[in-house]
Amino acid sequence: MVGGLLLVVTLLALAAGHGVVVAFDPNPLQDFCVYDTTSKVRVNGLPCKDPAAVVADDFFFSGVDAPGRGTASLRYGFTALSVQIPGLNTLGASHARVDVAPGGVFPPHYHPRASETAVVLEGSVYFGFVTSYPDNRLLARVLRRGDVFAVPQGLVHFLYNNGSEPAALYASLSSQNPGLVLVGDALFAAPLPGDLLAKTLLTDEGTVHKIRANFRRP
Amino acid sequence: MVGGLLLVVTLLALAAGHGVVVAFDPNPLQDFCVYDTTSKVRVNGLPCKDPAAVVADDFFFSGVDAPGRGTASLRYGFTALSVQIPGLNTLGASHARVDVAPGGVFPPHYHPRASETAVVLEGSVYFGFVTSYPDNRLLARVLRRGDVFAVPQGLVHFLYNNGSEPAALYASLSSQNPGLVLVGDALFAAPLPGDLLAKTLLTDEGTVHKIRANFRRP
Amino acid sequence: MVGGLLLVVTLLALAAGHGVVVAFDPNPLQDFCVYDTTSKVRVNGLPCKDPAAVVADDFFFSGVDAPGRGTASLRYGFTALSVQIPGLNTLGASHARVDVAPGGVFPPHYHPRASETAVVLEGSVYFGFVTSYPDNRLLARVLRRGDVFAVPQGLVHFLYNNGSEPAALYASLSSQNPGLVLVGDALFAAPLPGDLLAKTLLTDEGTVHKIRANFRRP
Amino acid sequence: MVGGLLLVVTLLALAAGHGVVVAFDPNPLQDFCVYDTTSKVRVNGLPCKDPAAVVADDFFFSGVDAPGRGTASLRYGFTALSVQIPGLNTLGASHARVDVAPGGVFPPHYHPRASETAVVLEGSVYFGFVTSYPDNRLLARVLRRGDVFAVPQGLVHFLYNNGSEPAALYASLSSQNPGLVLVGDALFAAPLPGDLLAKTLLTDEGTVHKIRANFRRP
Amino acid sequence: MVGGLLLVVTLLALAAGHGVVVAFDPNPLQDFCVYDTTSKVRVNGLPCKDPAAVVADDFFFSGVDAPGRGTASLRYGFTALSVQIPGLNTLGASHARVDVAPGGVFPPHYHPRASETAVVLEGSVYFGFVTSYPDNRLLARVLRRGDVFAVPQGLVHFLYNNGSEPAALYASLSSQNPGLVLVGDALFAAPLPGDLLAKTLLTDEGTVHKIRANFRRP
Amino acid sequence: MVGGLLLVVTLLALAAGHGVVVAFDPNPLQDFCVYDTTSKVRVNGLPCKDPAAVVADDFFFSGVDAPGRGTASLRYGFTALSVQIPGLNTLGASHARVDVAPGGVFPPHYHPRASETAVVLEGSVYFGFVTSYPDNRLLARVLRRGDVFAVPQGLVHFLYNNGSEPAALYASLSSQNPGLVLVGDALFAAPLPGDLLAKTLLTDEGTVHKIRANFRRP
Repeated sequence: MVGGLLLVVTLLALAAGHGVVVAFDPNPLQDFCVYDTTSKVRVNGLPCKDPAAVVADDFFFSGVDAPGRGTASLRYGFTALSVQIPGLNTLGASHARVDVAPGGVFPPHYHPRASETAVVLEGSVYFGFVTSYPDNRLLARVLRRGDVFAVPQGLVHFLYNNGSEPAALYASLSSQNPGLVLVGDALFAAPLPGDLLAKTLLTDEGTVHKIRANFRRP
Repeated sequence: MVGGLLLVVTLLALAAGHGVVVAFDPNPLQDFCVYDTTSKVRVNGLPCKDPAAVVADDFFFSGVDAPGRGTASLRYGFTALSVQIPGLNTLGASHARVDVAPGGVFPPHYHPRASETAVVLEGSVYFGFVTSYPDNRLLARVLRRGDVFAVPQGLVHFLYNNGSEPAALYASLSSQNPGLVLVGDALFAAPLPGDLLAKTLLTDEGTVHKIRANFRRP
Repeated sequence: MVGGLLLVVTLLALAAGHGVVVAFDPNPLQDFCVYDTTSKVRVNGLPCKDPAAVVADDFFFSGVDAPGRGTASLRYGFTALSVQIPGLNTLGASHARVDVAPGGVFPPHYHPRASETAVVLEGSVYFGFVTSYPDNRLLARVLRRGDVFAVPQGLVHFLYNNGSEPAALYASLSSQNPGLVLVGDALFAAPLPGDLLAKTLLTDEGTVHKIRANFRRP
Repeated sequence: MVGGLLLVVTLLALAAGHGVVVAFDPNPLQDFCVYDTTSKVRVNGLPCKDPAAVVADDFFFSGVDAPGRGTASLRYGFTALSVQIPGLNTLGASHARVDVAPGGVFPPHYHPRASETAVVLEGSVYFGFVTSYPDNRLLARVLRRGDVFAVPQGLVHFLYNNGSEPAALYASLSSQNPGLVLVGDALFAAPLPGDLLAKTLLTDEGTVHKIRANFRRP
Repeated sequence: MVGGLLLVVTLLALAAGHGVVVAFDPNPLQDFCVYDTTSKVRVNGLPCKDPAAVVADDFFFSGVDAPGRGTASLRYGFTALSVQIPGLNTLGASHARVDVAPGGVFPPHYHPRASETAVVLEGSVYFGFVTSYPDNRLLARVLRRGDVFAVPQGLVHFLYNNGSEPAALYASLSSQNPGLVLVGDALFAAPLPGDLLAKTLLTDEGTVHKIRANFRRP
Repeated sequence: MVGGLLLVVTLLALAAGHGVVVAFDPNPLQDFCVYDTTSKVRVNGLPCKDPAAVVADDFFFSGVDAPGRGTASLRYGFTALSVQIPGLNTLGASHARVDVAPGGVFPPHYHPRASETAVVLEGSVYFGFVTSYPDNRLLARVLRRGDVFAVPQGLVHFLYNNGSEPAALYASLSSQNPGLVLVGDALFAAPLPGDLLAKTLLTDEGTVHKIRANFRRP
């Protein structure tokens, strides 16, 4: 993805530490294991701070009522709530606020380690997911304020604001680090061989190069 | 809990089928296993309908933008989103909208099979949880619109609207069936021996009977 | 809980390290990961000592045949076997011996991260659990020597020795760190607002303060 | 195993239904899923009865204070508590009382789906387990009344009563169906090729046949 | 994907029953739960046949030494081993043989419920995966006969036979039903709105329609 | 096990670090957690290296096309692929190549933490497993090149090459560290009491000592 999303979603990446975010995580083995941002220990999941030093604000995040940074000038935005809430470590959940401007999309993507549900906070979006091989069925519908939609683990889904008002959603993911794979980026921002992409998209290399050029502009 | 909550929260119980609701569920073994409400099969979790008959609306719920039923006349309300969204079966998540009128509380409770996060949709609440034995630390704070707070699996937590506006939250739970135990009800609505309760609360049986009388009024 | 239990159950807290104890833990990834009590590393679960230094006594505990400390003068006692057996780390289990003097109770409590079974070693107790909302059914019976009773994960349960002999039970929990929440303590030993408690128990603040006073005496 | 154990341990097999019993089971998705012994449904785990029909006795078992059947005339005995307690389905635990007469052994065995702890109810036993390849370390010790010993998932362990009093233990396993593999039976009661066994035991086929003859006598 | 792969990979879909295939599955609760292809019961996973009727061939599959059907005339082929081996139900694993002709690709795809490893049986391929947002790093290399490569759960990966000999791999997946999402198909074979795709690929709708036309030819 | 296997399988032990290897592992919480061989941290599983330092070769292994070391002069060999591929940490899988010379066996063994499937790369073997107590059924058959056979978690299984050509298999295990217990070694290489073994094998101590003598020769 070019520009805007890259700037904005960086929040997610910073939040998630050595990877990104997921559901169906291993069960917790204590009341809480609040992420110790000062620890150098790297394990499956995140190390914990001294439980005696834990305070209420370790479980707190503010700002879901406002659009994510950058979304004024962009067509979409993202505010991730994963280890921005250090207390979410071991709790098997993370969240994000997603904003999509009129005509904007949150492009097809999936979470390799989580299922997702989202509730519309304002506006209206066309929201759907695609089932796996060989059906590739599209299960989609228009959502309005107060509507909820669920997406199974790992399936490709997208948001499209084809209305005239800004749309905002609050998404819940079933892992502290579900991960995010933007399908377009996986194909075009990574240096896959051009002829591989041409064979994948059943097209010619020229078309591939034309598309790729746009992914490479900062 | 008497009256209002009982009427309103019945939604949750109906939704949850043969028990109530949880996080850290077993991983799914197919794209989806949409709850088949016509099946007589009883297993850990819920049986699935024919995947060819699955439609987008199996993953859809509407109405989170409005207070739960009964909350106009009551001090709190609850709209559960568990198997009201049949597609949530096997996805390891459920949700609820909680409304608390000014001066109202959602009384101390816990979810035996899930962690929880909640975002404030409107109003303001004092939200907290209590750590386990022997510390019984209270980790709590006032939340306002757009604030998020997380509660570890199985810990007692509560909401108190000590402001002057109605408050509404959207809660996310890490199981399709987290279960709900209202601590007051577990003590006083269930027929525990009076002297056991007196010893538990370090008080006399008269006090126990006086409290219990209120729990038994419909 | 005042006095006695507090002194005695401290064993459990010390045993469990940075939290307390549970079942359905993550699977082990090696033969054993014996708790290294000298390590400063804090993760979900506990760090392991060098496997070459592991000895049989790391899997051993002695004393379940005698009442827990303090129970001579008190009405109940508790000997926890969690990381007192360092080898239990990653094995998905912990244990406790519970003693209840005649007329004594082990008050309503639950384990946020485990199911439990208990066998009566001696004496007789009334043992039960309460189902979750909205049923709050009491499933209970008198147990005698050699009887076993099971409690589902996270449900409130209690012991009441209404006989004339001391009772002792050996409890098995489905986590290395199931956690213990004494329901009375969660309400009255933690600093919850008095009016919240009054609304919770459907009573007046005076009654709440009267009860709370007893929980605050050391 | 010949004779006695076969007769007695049949309890375990009957109890466990289509297989035998283990720890680290999938998490429960409702308060309880009490085994419905009348259902024809076969799934991973066991089907549940109508929760409205569940009673306290579904969680109850009696008789752990007495030796298992057959142990008067035999050198060892076994009383399994798995789905003899129908409520244990989905709770991630099972139990057994094991009796070993003086001079008797509970021969080397393991549980393919569970870790185990055992407490000595009476008498004294030599109890140990063997670590996995390539160390094959023996971690063992003599246990007396009130002693507890833990065995990691899937490792070979045994009991030897080399004292002069009957010994009894109460074992806890981390699965509702841990399974039991008696190592001697797996080698000699199953029809493995004789030359395979000879190569396995680094001995001649005559020795294999001599040993096997005893396993085949009823 | 057009033509060849569709015909050949149908094996996988048929094999996987009501969805497709995955790793990190729930633990088994009995020795085995062999898929009962005659059962009408639909649950998370698959129902089991009577264990007494289980035979060795329930755990057997033949033909991994030969290319998958259709691969003589096509550029790639696939032989899935999931519930073609009914005994794999509950075992947390599935497999596939993949054939790629010289110049052929197994296009970018991922498994929503499994990690994967693959060993090259013959020939040579360029094999890689792309990390998640925001890095989109390509980790790839040429593999030759006897080489093994691992792919984390849910990440996009691909095979490209840019040599002159047919290549064949044997893939192992960490679920009985990992699922398969061909990224190109999810975008172009499903009926996503054309302008959504144009915005996703940072291109014009004409390019989208040109690509899509090829995905729609049978 | 004497000589050859001991030398060769040492690879497995070195690979597996502080224990050996298994399936049904805890879910990953990031894209990857590549084993950091320089870390001193010991936890359930293995510590991770800096994700920025991860390269494609962390997921790579070479040499499955050739017999394991030592097998030229021996009757069997083993090449383990566990943390020899550091990227397998958290991926829930490991592998091994097994070679069995004509007349050779890979003796009865089991994996305490994994199910297994194996595909025959060349030659022919008699492959089977034994069900748990009380059935001890043998499910076995001859496998030829391209045949696959599956073994449930924790059950005793074996390979016997009773043909005239070398046989080679590629095994997949459902854990990064399944563990290996050679049943003969667990009985005879560990220092179990001789009379315990005699009672276990229903034979005399002389026979036990004769067998054990061969296990003790280096």
